[in-house]
Amino acid sequence: MLKHNSYFDGKVQSLGFERNGRKQTAGVIIPGEYHFSTDAPERMTVVSGELSARFTPTGAWVTYPAGSSFEVAGKSAFDVKAGAPTAYLCEFL
Amino acid sequence: MLKHNSYFDGKVQSLGFERNGRKQTAGVIIPGEYHFSTDAPERMTVVSGELSARFTPTGAWVTYPAGSSFEVAGKSAFDVKAGAPTAYLCEFL
Repeated sequence: MLKHNSYFDGKVQSLGFERNGRKQTAGVIIPGEYHFSTDAPERMTVVSGELSARFTPTGAWVTYPAGSSFEVAGKSAFDVKAGAPTAYLCEFL
Repeated sequence: MLKHNSYFDGKVQSLGFERNGRKQTAGVIIPGEYHFSTDAPERMTVVSGELSARFTPTGAWVTYPAGSSFEVAGKSAFDVKAGAPTAYLCEFL
């Protein structure tokens, strides 16, 4: 079944599902900056809009437009920011 | 803000948002066959998985893999079926 997740007072929400034993979420981020921690490694793909991400607390922000993706190591953390509502797909690797 | 929508006893769920005055939803469909009605015209893009759709009640099913999309007229209806959980982006045109 689908699992509705809500983070950061509802500013980031996602729908979790599983296909062929692989977990994924389809989500939306409204404008703001957010700090995420990972358990499993994951691939984030921007589906609509644009995200910026950095992978160390003082690292450079990298911009990911719709259609692009980035991967994040397990047991790590990253920052994401959105200037407008942005939809993403997160695949747990 | 984001709006969480649930249809068909939670078998289809979506997160609604708006960017540049255009409404969109990011959603997930679990296996099954569903009948949708449209108000505004919309474009459905398969983000992960695969959907089949038909645009008349007895029409041929057309399969849309991830990355493909189809458009549906306003004030109309269509059927969708999924054999495995599938994520989509719906843009209201």
